[in-house]
Parts: sequence; structure tokens; C-alpha cells
Amino acid sequence: MSGSPVGKAPYKRIATEEAFATAEMFKLYRNLLERGVDSPAFQSLWGFYLLSKAERPRQIIERLLDLGDRRLSDMDATGIDMQILSLTAPGVQVLGTDAAKALSISANDELAEAIARHPARFAGLAAFAPQDPRHAAKELERGVAKLGLKGGILNSHVNDEYLDDPKFWTIFEAAESLDVPIYLHPSGPSKGLIQPMLEKGLDGAIFGFGVDTALHALRLIVAGVFDRFPRLKLVLGHLGEALPFWLYRLDYMHRATVASNRYESMKPLRKKPSDYMRENVYVTTSGMAWEPAIKFCQDVMGLDRVLYAMDYPYEFVAQEVVTQDNLSISLEERTKFFQTNAEKLFKLT
Amino acid sequence: MSGSPVGKAPYKRIATEEAFATAEMFKLYRNLLERGVDSPAFQSLWGFYLLSKAERPRQIIERLLDLGDRRLSDMDATGIDMQILSLTAPGVQVLGTDAAKALSISANDELAEAIARHPARFAGLAAFAPQDPRHAAKELERGVAKLGLKGGILNSHVNDEYLDDPKFWTIFEAAESLDVPIYLHPSGPSKGLIQPMLEKGLDGAIFGFGVDTALHALRLIVAGVFDRFPRLKLVLGHLGEALPFWLYRLDYMHRATVASNRYESMKPLRKKPSDYMRENVYVTTSGMAWEPAIKFCQDVMGLDRVLYAMDYPYEFVAQEVVTQDNLSISLEERTKFFQTNAEKLFKLT
Repeated sequence: MSGSPVGKAPYKRIATEEAFATAEMFKLYRNLLERGVDSPAFQSLWGFYLLSKAERPRQIIERLLDLGDRRLSDMDATGIDMQILSLTAPGVQVLGTDAAKALSISANDELAEAIARHPARFAGLAAFAPQDPRHAAKELERGVAKLGLKGGILNSHVNDEYLDDPKFWTIFEAAESLDVPIYLHPSGPSKGLIQPMLEKGLDGAIFGFGVDTALHALRLIVAGVFDRFPRLKLVLGHLGEALPFWLYRLDYMHRATVASNRYESMKPLRKKPSDYMRENVYVTTSGMAWEPAIKFCQDVMGLDRVLYAMDYPYEFVAQEVVTQDNLSISLEERTKFFQTNAEKLFKLT
Repeated sequence: MSGSPVGKAPYKRIATEEAFATAEMFKLYRNLLERGVDSPAFQSLWGFYLLSKAERPRQIIERLLDLGDRRLSDMDATGIDMQILSLTAPGVQVLGTDAAKALSISANDELAEAIARHPARFAGLAAFAPQDPRHAAKELERGVAKLGLKGGILNSHVNDEYLDDPKFWTIFEAAESLDVPIYLHPSGPSKGLIQPMLEKGLDGAIFGFGVDTALHALRLIVAGVFDRFPRLKLVLGHLGEALPFWLYRLDYMHRATVASNRYESMKPLRKKPSDYMRENVYVTTSGMAWEPAIKFCQDVMGLDRVLYAMDYPYEFVAQEVVTQDNLSISLEERTKFFQTNAEKLFKLT
């Protein structure tokens, strides 16, 4: 990464979907893999990353575990001023309830210590264990109020359950009341989704992650989560998991479906699906360093709704930063994109 | 629809994903529903359309069955010069093999008769029964060579099987050799995908159709169908089921996955996934009458690759035609979009 093509910029580059792991978490993950785990997604993802000898997974594991010099030097080499860190997927969500609660606490403590060592370079999102929604809400509150974290990280489904079930809503209530965002990050697709993807190697970041996460966001919308919590802020990576592309069709089909009473579960909402996408959702560019899609999202979501992310260490390509430095938007707009949108959303200043 | 807002245009408006049904097909569908069918997607979709008393499904059923005056008058009211007709999803693909073969033949004959009555207004795509791939290839050939049809219609999976399985490839071989496109149309998601969508009313056009069809197209790409049949042409509705939005990530993650040998099934391809999307795939605007997404696709796929479609009678909104008449592209480009791209792809002149 020497001779990096990334130059200085007149804005801070804040990367908003940047992953880390703790040694304790990987120990728990290795245990799960050894004794067998009832999650084809976890088996596919972490069976690969933790056991493969190939270059890419080996590098990723090393980088996930570093919250010090190696990470800072990678950030320097790619011109990243600050990372918003979150415990990598599926975080605590694949564990039994007690282990998940314990890991959320210890991971948040480790994260807060790393931030305390490098407060100008790191900020972070709190892990929590939706397996116990009240504990999750309390840990989110502890993370924000006591540890100075800037929101929560939700790695999609929780052992195949999505958070449109009202039993989880105490978590959203806490986030709204703390006025911090929840980052809805991909995870391997739930058991009811994964099989036809897994058969052809399409369950991961190439396709399955986006499907599962978009479905999760959409389930939250149609379940009325944003009617119940109108100030709740949700962040989606990968440019909104393609939901911005579908805004017109979501509105059309939601209206038509509600009008024809096709589903017991699909009730009228106060607003159109696209309204929630534009008023409650923010999207980041993790893994999508591609001008046409970024500008499309800025166009349909609004310039205040699109934030820079690298997706380190899963994506670690200096040229992708250059691509986004060179977006054909004004300097003021690029400053929003790289810096001030993140500062406002995560209350960094 | 009187006082239609659609004016005359200096181009022919050719709508490329327009559905019909035969009375025989609906009789078979009603039988399936009565005796119970092992397809939650079919139960959800046709259980609703055929049994609901609501206005929308009733109107749609009536319009699907009409290949005469009512359809022509609807076309006149929305300024549509020509419809490319295809047997509505899942067509014959939910039936047993013998019934599917018989229905493909009779539906193609009925379609050819309607086209013979109105050759300036209708063209069509041949139904075929992938349940018997050799019969399907022969029926596609009969449809094109004997009946003058312009390609084939494939309604996504066939009782939960996708056509990346080489046992189906004789169908692609026939399409390539006849030099006609296959329209890969959505169907209700396969059993391995549908459950978490169905739970919240998201299995249909609002979300599940796009997931299943995009997955199908992607499975064809990563299985090497376009390496084996480099001149095969595939048409995707709904602006490519969001695959154009993912082009960058598809390439990045396919390369990374192949390089790390993560999946036995994911082999190197001759080209990037985005190359096949741009060289073998065409997309239509069915259900996506929205300028930002249309222009995005024209930008990343090329102006020759994006064709107009209404999705009649599922969508039948004059204003959507006006929206597309008013796309901020040149008249020459709009002529391609509404007329000449379709004339070339389907060899209409």
C-alpha cells in the first residue's frame, strides 16, 4: 500500500462501516464451528474465513483483530481520517443468549478502550444481543451514555428472526430515545432464504447479504416500525442494499397490495415506503465504490442521506477512495458525503 | 381511460412484457388450487388473483383472458402500438410434465391465432415446458419457425429448479441456434426462498419476484451459461431486477470469491459478470416507470439495452407512458427505447 494514490483532501474522510473482531469472539466462533452450528450462513461465512488458508481470508482475520498500529497505518495509506467501528457480522447474534449478552458487553468495552487510545481516529457503534431485547436496549444505552458510542450495530436477523416482531421493539425505542442510529448490517441469509443462493456460492456479499438485509429493512417498514418510532434512524450499507433502486415499485406495489387486502399482515402505513427510506434511512457506500450507483442514490435519496464507507477490511482498495474523491459533485457536496453527514448522524463533534 | 393523457408520438410504442392467459390455463390453475399444490408461491399468487373478489385482481383476470377488442382498446387508450405477448407467470411451469407440454402447445397456438388476427398490434413469445427440456427446445423451435413467435418466455424456476442445471441447457442451445431471446420473467420465489418474504406479504411484485429472478439470472451467469452459449440473449424485466445496480459489486465479489476458492461450484468465467449483463442481457421497464432508474440503466447498460414495457395488465396506467415519453433523452434515443431496440431484438420488421 506504499505509494498510495490517495491524496490529501480538504475534508475529513470518515469511513462509516468498518469492522473489527475480538479474540474472544473468534474463540467462540471457532467453538461453534467445531461443535457444529445450526446456521448454514455462519458455517459458510466463518467456516471459510476462520479455516481457509487462502490469502484474502487470512489477511482479513488479521486486520479484523487489530485496533492499533496496523489499522491506523492502513487508514493512513488510504487517506481515512476516522473509522466508525462495529463488531463484524454476525457479531453476537449467532450465540446463545447468555454468551451473546456477555460478548456484547466485553466487545463494547474493548471498543471503547481502543477509541480512548485514539479518539481522533476511531468512533464506534455498540453491539447488543437482541436475543434478550431488554438487555439489548440497556446495553445500547450503556454503550452510548457510558462508553460514548454513537449508535448500535444490528447484523440482520437473529437466529432467523427479523426485528419487525414487536418483541424486539424495545431496542428501537431505546435508539429513538437516545437519538442514535441503528446500523442494519448484512449477515448471511436466514435459513428460510439461503439454500438456493448457497448452492451456487451466492449467499455472501455477492448477492445474499443484500437480499437478507433489504428484506429486513422492508419488513421493518411494512410492519410499521417507523410509524411507531418516527424519529428512529436506520443506516444501510452497500448503498441501501438496492432498495433505492426499487423506490417507485415499492410504493406502487405496497399501495396496490394494501388496497386489495391480499395479506392479513400488510396494513396501511402513514406514509409511502419511499418516504421512510428518505426520512428515516441513511445509506453508505460500503463495497459500492461506483459513481453511477452513488450518484443515483444521492439523486433519489438526497445528498444528506448518502455517506462514505469503505467496508474495511473486507474491502481495502485505495483506488476506491480515489474514485469517491473524484465524484463529479461540488466540493461542498463531497464534504457532506465524506465528513459532515457522518458528523451529524453520529454526533461526532 | 377516456381522456387519456397519452399523445401521439413520432415513434411506435412497443410494449415488451405484456401478459395474457388462456381459459384452459386458468381451469388447470383452479384445479391445482382446489386439490392443493405444493407451491407456497403459486398458492399466494393465484390463490389471490383467481379467488379474490377485490377490484384489482378481478380486472386483471378479465384483461389477461382477452386477446381481442378489450385489449386493443386498452392499448389505444394508453398509446401502445404493439404488445409482445407472453403467457403469464408461472405459465406451464407449475404443472406436471404432460399437462405442461400440452398447455405450452395449445397456448402457443392460441397466441399465434390472435397474432394472425392482429399482426400489426401483437407479437408473442413461445411458452415451453422445461420439465421436459427436449420437448421445450422443440416447442420453442416450433413456436419460432412455424408460428412466427419471436422468442421464448421462461417464468423463473421450474418447481424450484433453476436453469443453471445443465440438464436444461438444450433450451438455451435452441434459443441461441434460432437466434431468439429468452425472456426471464419473475415467478413467485422458490420454496427455498419464499418463507421470510411470505410472512410479511413481500413474496410478490413488491420484492420476492425481483429476488427470485435476479438470483436465477445470476445463477445462469456464474454457472457459465453465457460462456457455453455466447450468443444467447436474455431479457430481464423490471429494469433487470436490480442487477444493474449491483454491477460493480458483482464483479468485485465474483473475482474475490473465485480467487479464494471458497466454493467448489464457483469457477472462473471468461468474462466479468457485468460483461455478460452488458453483452447478453437486455432489460425492460415493466413496472419501473421511473426516470431515475431508467436513466441509470441506460447509463450503465447502454442505450441499446433498455426497452420499454408496461407489464399490462398488472400495470395499466396511462401516466406511466407519459413519464416515459418525457424521458430527458433525445428523440433518437427515445425511438430506440420505445421502438427500434425491440424491433431488432425481437426481429419485428
